[in-house]
Order: sequence, then C-alpha cells, then structure tokens
Amino acid sequence: MSLKSLGTELRCQCINKESRFIHPKLIQNVELIPSGPHCANTEVIATMKTGKKICLEPTAPWVKILIKAIMENQKL
Amino acid sequence: MSLKSLGTELRCQCINKESRFIHPKLIQNVELIPSGPHCANTEVIATMKTGKKICLEPTAPWVKILIKAIMENQKL
Repeated sequence: MSLKSLGTELRCQCINKESRFIHPKLIQNVELIPSGPHCANTEVIATMKTGKKICLEPTAPWVKILIKAIMENQKL
Repeated sequence: MSLKSLGTELRCQCINKESRFIHPKLIQNVELIPSGPHCANTEVIATMKTGKKICLEPTAPWVKILIKAIMENQKL
C-alpha cells in the first residue's frame, strides 16, 4: 500500500511513489495535492478504474505528460 | 452549486466552471478527471481549504499555470 490515508491529512499521504508507466486508460482520475506545511512535496494520487489509489512520482516524465494530456483534453 | 455530485459518476460532474482567478493559497487540492465516455471534456475540481468544491475551467490560463506550479512543487 503506497497510501497512508484517503482523507484530508495533516501530513504527507504518499509513502511510495510509482515512477513506472501506468496506462492512462486504467486511470479514472488524478488528485494533485500542493506542497504546504503538511508536506514538503507535491503529491499526485491516481485513482484507478478498479478503485485502487496509487501515488505517482510528480517528477517522472510520463506523469508530467499524463497531466498535460488530461489538461489538453487529449484522448487517453 | 457548480458540482452535481462528489462521488464517482457516469456523467459530467461540473455544471458551471470558474474561469476567474482563485488564490492558490485557498486551494487544498485539485482533482483532474480525464474525458471519456462519461463526459466529453476534462473536468478540474478544486477543493478549497474550507472544504467547498469548485469546478475550474481547464482552458483558463490561470488554471493551466496553477496545475503547472503544483506539478513543479512551487510555493503557492
């Protein structure tokens, strides 16, 4: 499990972050949690179509491309 | 209310989309929902620190800058 909790937390949510490619078709949505007093780094949490939540590595090139593609309304 | 529902839905979530600037310091997290059979357009839903959810216009320049800033772990 790479996620401590699914609710609003006062600390970082992600323990492990996935850098390996996950096919965008398997992803239902992506939550971006900005860094702040609760956590020094941005957290990116993907909810899979299966319901499983996976923390993504925000600096991984494929993650950046994924976010850009979603924002540009590209077909995933 | 600009949001039909907060759960996983089979249709678009956003009725109205906010294009006006909202200060990033007020935003707790941002959910990106890719387009798909349920909805033709990407949906961007910000959860405010107050708990209120607001749909953002994905094509608004400030929204694009916000997402980029979060991904780059910039201080908001």
